[in-house]
Amino acid sequence: MPLGRKVKYGMVGGGPGAFIGAVHRRAAELDGLAELVAGAFSSDAQKSRTFGESLHLDPARCYPSYEAMAEGEAARAPGDRIDVVVIVTPNHLHYTVARAFIERGFHVICDKPMTTTLADAESLCRLVEQYGVTFALTHNYSGYPLVKHAKAMVAAGTLGALRKVVVEYTQGWLGTALEESGQKQADWRTDPARAGAGALGDIGSHAEQLARYVIGQRITRMLADVGTVIPGRRVDDDANLLLRYEGGVRGILHCSQVASGEENRISLRVYGSEGSLEWSQEDPNRLFFRPVDGPMQTLTRGSGYLSTEAQRATRLPSGHPEAFFEAFANVYANALRTIAARVAGETPDAADLDFPTVHDGATGVHFIETALRSGGTVGSGGHWVDATYTPSA
Amino acid sequence: MPLGRKVKYGMVGGGPGAFIGAVHRRAAELDGLAELVAGAFSSDAQKSRTFGESLHLDPARCYPSYEAMAEGEAARAPGDRIDVVVIVTPNHLHYTVARAFIERGFHVICDKPMTTTLADAESLCRLVEQYGVTFALTHNYSGYPLVKHAKAMVAAGTLGALRKVVVEYTQGWLGTALEESGQKQADWRTDPARAGAGALGDIGSHAEQLARYVIGQRITRMLADVGTVIPGRRVDDDANLLLRYEGGVRGILHCSQVASGEENRISLRVYGSEGSLEWSQEDPNRLFFRPVDGPMQTLTRGSGYLSTEAQRATRLPSGHPEAFFEAFANVYANALRTIAARVAGETPDAADLDFPTVHDGATGVHFIETALRSGGTVGSGGHWVDATYTPSA
Amino acid sequence: MPLGRKVKYGMVGGGPGAFIGAVHRRAAELDGLAELVAGAFSSDAQKSRTFGESLHLDPARCYPSYEAMAEGEAARAPGDRIDVVVIVTPNHLHYTVARAFIERGFHVICDKPMTTTLADAESLCRLVEQYGVTFALTHNYSGYPLVKHAKAMVAAGTLGALRKVVVEYTQGWLGTALEESGQKQADWRTDPARAGAGALGDIGSHAEQLARYVIGQRITRMLADVGTVIPGRRVDDDANLLLRYEGGVRGILHCSQVASGEENRISLRVYGSEGSLEWSQEDPNRLFFRPVDGPMQTLTRGSGYLSTEAQRATRLPSGHPEAFFEAFANVYANALRTIAARVAGETPDAADLDFPTVHDGATGVHFIETALRSGGTVGSGGHWVDATYTPSA
Amino acid sequence: MPLGRKVKYGMVGGGPGAFIGAVHRRAAELDGLAELVAGAFSSDAQKSRTFGESLHLDPARCYPSYEAMAEGEAARAPGDRIDVVVIVTPNHLHYTVARAFIERGFHVICDKPMTTTLADAESLCRLVEQYGVTFALTHNYSGYPLVKHAKAMVAAGTLGALRKVVVEYTQGWLGTALEESGQKQADWRTDPARAGAGALGDIGSHAEQLARYVIGQRITRMLADVGTVIPGRRVDDDANLLLRYEGGVRGILHCSQVASGEENRISLRVYGSEGSLEWSQEDPNRLFFRPVDGPMQTLTRGSGYLSTEAQRATRLPSGHPEAFFEAFANVYANALRTIAARVAGETPDAADLDFPTVHDGATGVHFIETALRSGGTVGSGGHWVDATYTPSA
Repeated sequence: MPLGRKVKYGMVGGGPGAFIGAVHRRAAELDGLAELVAGAFSSDAQKSRTFGESLHLDPARCYPSYEAMAEGEAARAPGDRIDVVVIVTPNHLHYTVARAFIERGFHVICDKPMTTTLADAESLCRLVEQYGVTFALTHNYSGYPLVKHAKAMVAAGTLGALRKVVVEYTQGWLGTALEESGQKQADWRTDPARAGAGALGDIGSHAEQLARYVIGQRITRMLADVGTVIPGRRVDDDANLLLRYEGGVRGILHCSQVASGEENRISLRVYGSEGSLEWSQEDPNRLFFRPVDGPMQTLTRGSGYLSTEAQRATRLPSGHPEAFFEAFANVYANALRTIAARVAGETPDAADLDFPTVHDGATGVHFIETALRSGGTVGSGGHWVDATYTPSA
Repeated sequence: MPLGRKVKYGMVGGGPGAFIGAVHRRAAELDGLAELVAGAFSSDAQKSRTFGESLHLDPARCYPSYEAMAEGEAARAPGDRIDVVVIVTPNHLHYTVARAFIERGFHVICDKPMTTTLADAESLCRLVEQYGVTFALTHNYSGYPLVKHAKAMVAAGTLGALRKVVVEYTQGWLGTALEESGQKQADWRTDPARAGAGALGDIGSHAEQLARYVIGQRITRMLADVGTVIPGRRVDDDANLLLRYEGGVRGILHCSQVASGEENRISLRVYGSEGSLEWSQEDPNRLFFRPVDGPMQTLTRGSGYLSTEAQRATRLPSGHPEAFFEAFANVYANALRTIAARVAGETPDAADLDFPTVHDGATGVHFIETALRSGGTVGSGGHWVDATYTPSA
Repeated sequence: MPLGRKVKYGMVGGGPGAFIGAVHRRAAELDGLAELVAGAFSSDAQKSRTFGESLHLDPARCYPSYEAMAEGEAARAPGDRIDVVVIVTPNHLHYTVARAFIERGFHVICDKPMTTTLADAESLCRLVEQYGVTFALTHNYSGYPLVKHAKAMVAAGTLGALRKVVVEYTQGWLGTALEESGQKQADWRTDPARAGAGALGDIGSHAEQLARYVIGQRITRMLADVGTVIPGRRVDDDANLLLRYEGGVRGILHCSQVASGEENRISLRVYGSEGSLEWSQEDPNRLFFRPVDGPMQTLTRGSGYLSTEAQRATRLPSGHPEAFFEAFANVYANALRTIAARVAGETPDAADLDFPTVHDGATGVHFIETALRSGGTVGSGGHWVDATYTPSA
Repeated sequence: MPLGRKVKYGMVGGGPGAFIGAVHRRAAELDGLAELVAGAFSSDAQKSRTFGESLHLDPARCYPSYEAMAEGEAARAPGDRIDVVVIVTPNHLHYTVARAFIERGFHVICDKPMTTTLADAESLCRLVEQYGVTFALTHNYSGYPLVKHAKAMVAAGTLGALRKVVVEYTQGWLGTALEESGQKQADWRTDPARAGAGALGDIGSHAEQLARYVIGQRITRMLADVGTVIPGRRVDDDANLLLRYEGGVRGILHCSQVASGEENRISLRVYGSEGSLEWSQEDPNRLFFRPVDGPMQTLTRGSGYLSTEAQRATRLPSGHPEAFFEAFANVYANALRTIAARVAGETPDAADLDFPTVHDGATGVHFIETALRSGGTVGSGGHWVDATYTPSA
């Protein structure tokens, strides 16, 4: 890295009890590219401080609020402030937090979905452009090396003309009214005000991005059969979509958080005229390629025959599995190297630009809104709607 | 069996080059319950005779046509004629052949889909009732022992309240315009006149029956996104359906014959409030049960803990796999024992009545017609339609 | 088949309660090549007759003993007697039964292990040669199409120079002193007088044959760690062997019948300089090929890229699984076609000669005896012994 | 942690081109428990410095040799020196490096095998006791959460009385004479002077430790069939062992580095009277439990039903896979927390003592030496030898 030091990051959210905050910290630091130097970990000032100290941070940089952090860090000497803010709050806060830091010139790494309204998402697109910052969205599933290889195979035409995509994200953890028990994750993720949407936002948007990343095509039409299976739940928890992509590719996307017994089954199949691919996140070190003639091949992460894109996203030889943290860290590594280059006043390496951006974020929010619009009254089954969307570049 | 001899069957269709005829013969005879004594194997009289002789049949009972066979057998002495006709012609002939034999009092075992029109299907329902014959439809996938166990688990409430069904039948063998090459199977299966429908009829109807068999519920509404991927093909080859079952269960059914690289992937998932099931035909000796709490269980065919229904449909201990022929033979065994009882003037064993009937056939044809109606213009994406149907019992 | 009729077979053993008799009958008849016309199913004359009648046999040909059957059939007119006897008694009877039929000129299909002593085995070799009959031994696991393909790959040099073989046959059904409960199968299979050996004979000999069939090499040295885990058991129930094959190939063969929780795990790995193969009987429709460079390939039964030997041993297209009965029937089909040719006075098709013979039987019995000799006192761990053996051809 | 800061570590070895150094650094830092502050990364002083600087280390602490580092760090103020040295050199240097640091009172984390002679291993045992330091050996495979759960199940008696262990570690990367190409890893790992042994030391010792860790029993007798498959190779590359454990448990351990096509297949099966376990490192998030009655269970990492030992070794919910780095980090986390407690003058948490120690290291070296002794002349097949060993505690 041109910077001659680790990238310095601060974190908003991710305090005690948060699942995703610790994931981001490990992902950020796995490759020795970044160090945490500041944080506003909780809306409770005391908790934020105590938590930051448990991470050996300077107490002065354990802020009581994101506003205080944005101002405090901006007031520090240029080489001594954070380079980038990592936003891991509930969804409804992403926009205002991101805005506060972008307007002070900080780069941003933000969890998904990016915002709870398309208006906010598009506002962020404009802000990112206006202030010239780097904005990375942590669609971590596209960080898996074999997902990158799948994308490379599609791009190389190995599958021939694409015909059909089947993508799903199936979980069971919200199979009961867990939110009524006060469980923290369930609480905010099923609150329309804080989450925006339910399964569609929390996991459906991952599925949409995963498919789009691999096939390199955008959805043009959709019909979303949006449902709420658990009585009393205020957001969708099961959604089944029929899709058309650019070029007429047919698609099925289904997601559920009430599929009892399932853990975190996000999987993708892509069918083309010359063969097909299948990948499942719960078994991430294998990619199944079925050529139209000849036996199925099991491609394994770390193998020498993989594409450059997959090779550079791997740290261990084949047979030594990598998994969730490493994939997450791949999103971070590219984003951090890009940010380091920009902080150093250099041009980022083109290969490092392979991470989801603010435009992916806007596309994801548009997907969620369109699906909810298509779905109409919950349980009605939905109707076909136009789903074309081009984020302002 | 009460009959004191094997059931005697004749076959219509299934001559040289036919895939499914040999399957039916093996299935019929696997358990020593039936013997082939007559046939009209081809519309070419000479071919029919030569083929029958290769099976060591009496040349006099190798008929030049189904009409000749129906008449010829009916003219024989009661104990010396066939008990049942097995119909394995292309779909468009099922109705007339079945009718000819039913009207002469013969029992019928028929391949699916039962007919190419709902009117014909309902006519067969009436004929079966009128003539009091047994009519079995070879939806062979519901013959697998672990499918029977899945049905038993659902019926016992082990999954709790059902929520969602995901069923698919995915193949790749029609991924090119194979019918233009003159390949016999592709030729008639893509001809609207002989097949009725394409993927929906050939494999989608299997998927529909498999799900219905297991969950014991009927579809009430559907939206079918029916497509033809291969240019010039005259029938559908890819269809994706959203479903509602009685009781509000949500469903996805997708089928394709253009999914390059896939072989014969018919699989089913059923999600309930207390757990879920997953089964795939390409790995038929394992049934995955995911209870809502506790580890996934892999139930294996032949195990002592399985339901009576599964146990009586198995011939080998666990670890000694059974497969396609044996499942097919399970449909036959129940149908043949039922027929033997009726021929012998006895009441069939209730357990033997577990085979698809003419009413399942009508339901399947209604499913196909409804899906095509929902699909509308090919490629339009389809719209929601009422799908309730109760065959005349 | 040149015979113009089905091969007629009689069965010795395989009456009520026998597992393997029904397997043989289904295997013999699956392809329409043979019909059962006589039997001595039990040493109890009444049971034999009742059982034969349940199979719709002529009561006159339901014999009270194998001697009566040998004499009775020999006394019938040439075209009206059995062509071949199928022997499915406990092991200790194989020799005398086989001898009685061979000496009357009948062909023989016999379950394994062939005999309980090498002297008997070699005597059978001589008798077979002397009387010019066909003798087939039902090592059914080498009947699986993908095992045949594995053999073809090795023969074609696809794996390069062979290095190592790992073969196992692991079961758990004798994990308790089941023989003390009177369970029929356990009773005779753990009786040294009737079974000869325990796990080594019952399943270890299958593993030995499977490996030898695929790699085409014979064992030259071995060390057998033979154990009896269940107190009081009179035969070995767990044996672990180190091997050397011709050409220096290193080998591990392990078998167990006390491996709690296992069903019927017979699997084989072959490593060569250019790649390796892995196959497991519980998942028989897949063969894993790992080339030294490039991704693992999953070869599937029924695929067009398979060898001729695999293709001719398959009945269904890929994705439509075949299993235990069909593999067993492949041994039968080759043996029956060979017998039919000989009965018709013709030369058998060379491709049909692919079935285990009396010499394989002698090799298997030698293997068992050598392993027991190497093992020495049970539990001692065993010592290296010469294991070369060439059956008199 | 009681220390109020991260543990400070220095590294010996692990410079440019080393595979395992980067693994150790990621493992050490994954949980925010340690920071790298010094290193002697290469025997080339300039390379060591450059490499250390690339890691943002203080150039003054990038030492030209391990001796300089031991002296230099010992000369620093108590709170400002390293707490622990991490040794990742080729095997033959472990002893002298460890000794240099132990004698100065530093704690040690060392890669395996611990030494190249048992005498050195036992000397280290005495030094560790004499100087009262903590010594951790990175047998990383026992760091996998489901391996810990397997151990807990055995300890709880869930498998009943143990009967048999089958453990293997199979690789193919040394399937050609890679060492002749100058490839760095192959070069030293096949040099008897630097590696000590070949496959037995590099991977066989992992397999031995994995099995011993899970079953809690030590080997008492063994026979090792030690081979060198690649002509000209100076160490063993394929070894197959028969074992007896305390209590009479029968064992098979096999390892190979010439198994073409294999990646890093280390797997373990444990059979007991009440059930069996199976785990494979290439699919580390699943543990298969086969109870003697009832279906196989697939236990998944991160599930609430797992043992405390497994739960505390996991960071992500089930369905979000963890893998090699995380398992490695589990060894580190326990060792680092123990070291932190000792540095802080406190008693370590008993649960943190779950990491391999110097005594495990001596046991491993004894295993290697005993296997080589049993094996005798390469290719002879080996003979049974006493293998009891109790490291001085």
